Amino acid sequence: MLATVLHKPGDIRCEEVADPKILRPTDAIIKLSASCICGSDLWPYRGLQPVDGPQHMGHEYCGIVVEVGAEVRNVRPGQFVVGSFCLSDNTCPHCRFGFQSSCEQREFMSGAQAPYARVPLADGTLVATSEVPPAELIPDLLAVSDVLGTGWYAADAAEVREGSTVVVVGDGAVGLMGVLAAREMGAGRIIAMSRHASRQKLAREFGATDIVAERGEEGIARIKELTKGIGADSVLECVGTGESFDQALACSRPGGTIGYVGVPHGVSFDGQKLFFGQKRMLGGPAPVRRFLPDLMERVLQGRIKPGKVFDLKLPLAEVAEGYRAMDERRAIKVMLEV
Amino acid sequence: MLATVLHKPGDIRCEEVADPKILRPTDAIIKLSASCICGSDLWPYRGLQPVDGPQHMGHEYCGIVVEVGAEVRNVRPGQFVVGSFCLSDNTCPHCRFGFQSSCEQREFMSGAQAPYARVPLADGTLVATSEVPPAELIPDLLAVSDVLGTGWYAADAAEVREGSTVVVVGDGAVGLMGVLAAREMGAGRIIAMSRHASRQKLAREFGATDIVAERGEEGIARIKELTKGIGADSVLECVGTGESFDQALACSRPGGTIGYVGVPHGVSFDGQKLFFGQKRMLGGPAPVRRFLPDLMERVLQGRIKPGKVFDLKLPLAEVAEGYRAMDERRAIKVMLEV
Repeated sequence: MLATVLHKPGDIRCEEVADPKILRPTDAIIKLSASCICGSDLWPYRGLQPVDGPQHMGHEYCGIVVEVGAEVRNVRPGQFVVGSFCLSDNTCPHCRFGFQSSCEQREFMSGAQAPYARVPLADGTLVATSEVPPAELIPDLLAVSDVLGTGWYAADAAEVREGSTVVVVGDGAVGLMGVLAAREMGAGRIIAMSRHASRQKLAREFGATDIVAERGEEGIARIKELTKGIGADSVLECVGTGESFDQALACSRPGGTIGYVGVPHGVSFDGQKLFFGQKRMLGGPAPVRRFLPDLMERVLQGRIKPGKVFDLKLPLAEVAEGYRAMDERRAIKVMLEV
Repeated sequence: MLATVLHKPGDIRCEEVADPKILRPTDAIIKLSASCICGSDLWPYRGLQPVDGPQHMGHEYCGIVVEVGAEVRNVRPGQFVVGSFCLSDNTCPHCRFGFQSSCEQREFMSGAQAPYARVPLADGTLVATSEVPPAELIPDLLAVSDVLGTGWYAADAAEVREGSTVVVVGDGAVGLMGVLAAREMGAGRIIAMSRHASRQKLAREFGATDIVAERGEEGIARIKELTKGIGADSVLECVGTGESFDQALACSRPGGTIGYVGVPHGVSFDGQKLFFGQKRMLGGPAPVRRFLPDLMERVLQGRIKPGKVFDLKLPLAEVAEGYRAMDERRAIKVMLEV
């Protein structure tokens, strides 16, 4: 089949690879309904993460099960499924506590920018719908797999509650999903930090009540002004740089909570500063599996439309253009027709 | 009056000072029923914190109100009161969220190792009992002012719940109070890390179910063994060194929570390590005011005996010996008869 392979930074190709096969009795093979490019795919693409030989790219997926290993019990061929980018058994103690992204058997999905993919730990990872959903819901269901699940986790980790004042740092796809999540959780005020008109517009559509275009000291001052000097109850950190963490820490009130889902790159925290700032923090790879049934149901009921985050759709053959568009921030998030 | 003054590191004296006076209309003057020495008093005593001229020491206190400023409404002369080491108005937004230790008007108490002391922001800071309590409860009520309040906050910040598995890092007075707090909150298992026989004994008395004497890698391995490889739900970090934070992070399960009340000294956290460790963290100076009414009530009802943490009682005139005894770890915590 034709699939996406990163050979070295900047060199992404759609090329012939072997069809995926059941390797372990707990695997499933799915035929993807669609795939997409993640912000985190840009790290190796940009050379910010080592590329040791050709990598099969893609970890966001939904589709139809075509084959299952001998031990798979929870899904069967013909079912439509969504899974998380974190593969988990969903039975170990960490999974049972709702932290499937720290599953004792955790693996990370790969090879999903392709027509077919192998999903290890299928029973724990995949959630099936009762019927095959209509085609127009595919972008929304695909978004659940990572970008919405991650934005949702940011809001959950930041303890967004009915009436909370929320700041979202980062207007990438995850940040925009964080806005949507905060609205669904009943936040009273959602301040999106964004400088780009198209992203501001989408943030408003997803539920942002205020936009702050300023950054750094000016951005902090603006948030303080909007929150009467108090700071936000909840801050969603969806970037991962030192600057964005400084922003997040300064924007939350004492006793407020920061949920961080941008993988920190070259960031460290001074213990004494954190102590006297008195901010609650929780981050990590999102345990999307915890949220999957609920989020899929919200999509199926037409309650949320996370698929709007895809502002460019390309055939898989043009995946290289998709990476370029996201790298150059011409696109928020690219969906791939496989 | 005779009171405690630190002149320079190691030079602590009980000497004649001016009697405290009402300086602002929101002040109260109290006659202390007893005072004590805090682990944090040892920082300037040891020269780990700058000493710019003579400092009036002491921030833990309870006693009888003898005079109030013109604007004080909530307490009156003759009442027995307990206050927090953090002075707060208890009306600003941060106070109303329960983070009085980040009060917009926050000051830190000083000069309480003395027969009389001035308490600024008296209305917000002090909590009165309905009657003057019997003398035998004074050590317990004094403990509420900081050491118990801080241990309680560690357990609260670490989200200890009915049935939780808890690890307490640090067997100082605050750590021991953390054990007591965890027991009161219904923890199912409380593992105290302690190498000292007398502290182990007290930890067991306060509710520890297990003692781990090992430290570093061995200590971590022992906790993992005791928790079936999972780690603790809640970890109370009551030391503040790099080593103790490493211990705390390694002992908590993914999604578990670390409450840290040891002021971090020379500690920094690597963002990416925190991220993938997926630990929830909250620290800071304890908002003791939030807990005061509840903790005083538990003491008055005879439900808890935090005063047991005082294993040496000295007259104020011998305060220098008290500092030496704590510095050399001959005493867990010294009470001063004023």
